[in-house]
Amino acid sequence: MKQGILFAILLSVLACTKQEPKEELPTTAFPLKLENLEENRPMSAAMKRAFNNYEAPRLLDNELYSNFRYTQLEGLDYHGGDGTISRRDPSKIIFENGKYYVWYTYRNTPVAPRGFEKANDTIPSTDWDLAEIWYATSEDGFTWEEQGVAVPRPKKPMRGHRSVATADILKWKDSYYLYYQAFDAPSGKYNPEKDAYDICPVAMSKASSPDGPWEPIDKVVVPFGESDAWDWRVIHDPNPLVHDGKVYLYYKSGLDVRDANRKFWDVWGLVVADNPEGPFVKHPLSPVTNSGHETMIFPFREGVAALIGTDGIEHYTIQYAKDWVNFEIASVSQLFPTAAGVYCPDSFTDSKNADGITWGLSHFINAGNDWGNMYSILGRFDCDLSLSVDDPSLKQSNLLYPNDLYFSRGLSEDQKTRIKERIKNNK
Amino acid sequence: MKQGILFAILLSVLACTKQEPKEELPTTAFPLKLENLEENRPMSAAMKRAFNNYEAPRLLDNELYSNFRYTQLEGLDYHGGDGTISRRDPSKIIFENGKYYVWYTYRNTPVAPRGFEKANDTIPSTDWDLAEIWYATSEDGFTWEEQGVAVPRPKKPMRGHRSVATADILKWKDSYYLYYQAFDAPSGKYNPEKDAYDICPVAMSKASSPDGPWEPIDKVVVPFGESDAWDWRVIHDPNPLVHDGKVYLYYKSGLDVRDANRKFWDVWGLVVADNPEGPFVKHPLSPVTNSGHETMIFPFREGVAALIGTDGIEHYTIQYAKDWVNFEIASVSQLFPTAAGVYCPDSFTDSKNADGITWGLSHFINAGNDWGNMYSILGRFDCDLSLSVDDPSLKQSNLLYPNDLYFSRGLSEDQKTRIKERIKNNK
Repeated sequence: MKQGILFAILLSVLACTKQEPKEELPTTAFPLKLENLEENRPMSAAMKRAFNNYEAPRLLDNELYSNFRYTQLEGLDYHGGDGTISRRDPSKIIFENGKYYVWYTYRNTPVAPRGFEKANDTIPSTDWDLAEIWYATSEDGFTWEEQGVAVPRPKKPMRGHRSVATADILKWKDSYYLYYQAFDAPSGKYNPEKDAYDICPVAMSKASSPDGPWEPIDKVVVPFGESDAWDWRVIHDPNPLVHDGKVYLYYKSGLDVRDANRKFWDVWGLVVADNPEGPFVKHPLSPVTNSGHETMIFPFREGVAALIGTDGIEHYTIQYAKDWVNFEIASVSQLFPTAAGVYCPDSFTDSKNADGITWGLSHFINAGNDWGNMYSILGRFDCDLSLSVDDPSLKQSNLLYPNDLYFSRGLSEDQKTRIKERIKNNK
Repeated sequence: MKQGILFAILLSVLACTKQEPKEELPTTAFPLKLENLEENRPMSAAMKRAFNNYEAPRLLDNELYSNFRYTQLEGLDYHGGDGTISRRDPSKIIFENGKYYVWYTYRNTPVAPRGFEKANDTIPSTDWDLAEIWYATSEDGFTWEEQGVAVPRPKKPMRGHRSVATADILKWKDSYYLYYQAFDAPSGKYNPEKDAYDICPVAMSKASSPDGPWEPIDKVVVPFGESDAWDWRVIHDPNPLVHDGKVYLYYKSGLDVRDANRKFWDVWGLVVADNPEGPFVKHPLSPVTNSGHETMIFPFREGVAALIGTDGIEHYTIQYAKDWVNFEIASVSQLFPTAAGVYCPDSFTDSKNADGITWGLSHFINAGNDWGNMYSILGRFDCDLSLSVDDPSLKQSNLLYPNDLYFSRGLSEDQKTRIKERIKNNK
């Protein structure tokens, strides 16, 4: 009977030994043509990634890789580029009444931004101070007709009486909702409590037509986190989509990391609500990205895709989350649009096979190339992040930049000094 | 006794149940400060990567992340930029006799490249046709003194009688070895057997001083693969390092994938030899990268780091292989040097704690901005991929590019037509 016990133990131990195939070395060379690649061939870590981590080993076949092409817009005036008129942070673009609609941060001030110290009731501190939400329409996406204000600054003490900025749009049933940042003080004013400079709760307005009128809803739609939570300081760039019959709203906030480059580690959070007006519940796995400045995100296939532009360890990547929460790197790209608003026909359709995007608008800061007259312009970008488009010319990974661009990024005096020191020390 | 058996089975089954913690949702918000992050907190996939896949969640702390700064070199003449003189594909840089040494592809021809059809004994087909390996020295790395030819084109029928190009250097014991591409026909001549245009076995020369004289060794040092192997067509950019008392030589070849962008999928292979003259044995896990054009690679810590520049699904990444074979993504960067030769003091020291790199030389093609007078220049890049340097200004991830650069990448007529069509079809 002892044997019986031993046998039983042996059996069960055998039954649970790990089945992972032991990593062996291949006995033949990697084939010249992929069709000759044997299944289960042992591969280097990088080649395994090529076949397992991406849609396809060739960028040409990767629906979530694209270059970006850029075009100046027609129809928007910037007062000679003197910095008094600025347009930035475009919303998603929607197609209604036979036209494309976009909302954006519009600033029209007597002078360009002068910083917080010099700001007053008419002088803006930053490019997004003393701003309103305006909108424009277009029939071709290249020439835009400004329609005027959608959300003006409300009267004191309503939220946003100093500035309303960085709007995004949601279409829900037959209503339209604009989510935006509502400033009660000039952007750039230091807030010692939050140790932050850009205090702006997310407010919203509602309309039954994209042409308005917009009725403000005077409450904080997306609550700040508690004082020890990552998103306690700011809630920026609210970006609403529809998924599983709910509103999925992504936003940017930042951990306090005292980075020498930037004090805060920008990442994106996710809140979910049954209705546009909330209550919005924070997804417990937030932050859902580890990088990224302005939120650029759109439904793709059954999941959601994100353009992770500047800032962070995975900046300049395009990512995909099948479950809308857990993002994986789909590709690495370059020359990303900044603060893009995408035209995504499936933003609100709750499709389980979203087509993706082929274009949108982004902003270009310091359009005057003079920080003294700082202003931003809107421009158009085109790409192939769409299942229904197949444009090989947008799948290249060997873009040639002008040589001058490289040499325009020279060494600082500190760096030159360090280099001399290292040579002295034979390093 | 039956109980005994059951108990034993139960025990052993319990003993081998997977210990992985079941994925639960956190009950608290992610903290504002990292020091308050609880161990084993459930995190989103992206945040898990931030802490597990990289040196550090902040780029500032990532020794394998850097921006690149560029500086024009002094001391090298290009005959007014008429395309008759070209310098490209710099080797690694070594420090000997109180000077930095670099070898490179030098072309001095009556006219600029004219393509294969027009090429003859004096007219080059490509920028690296009718070339020799020349070298220059420098005391500061910015001003270079050309020393003349190191490896001239040998007489027929010796390998490389048409052109010798793309050299790299190895110091082994008290000898110096140059590995380079040896052309017997004009680059660009179609080779139907290999279905390739750049047939150039890896040849080598040996010297007892970096100033030569260089004695050619007339044999193929790195053999091509068999006709069904991934590296059957070409062996480019041989790049030798010393590891574990052996020569580790990385090179570029390409799978046949008939990509609409490029016919071949460029990846890197690894060969290992006990001695510089070989025989070189191909590592069975080759290809060891899944992307990358010219090989840019250097010892780092106990492993080896690679700059994956243009081309491929992981282009514009910096990667690290602790075992010199299995590369993982260490960071994503931008504006990479092209065909860089790095100054890495540990290239040949077999150090198990290599410091990395802070500078090197790279080439800039089409320096005349005129494909009719095509030539290349050498320039310097600086970076912080070094354990002994800490330069926060080189760890930024929010580089601002000139707006003109974006708009210089406009739409093609085909793309404009497609966009109009999609609007018609309400897409």
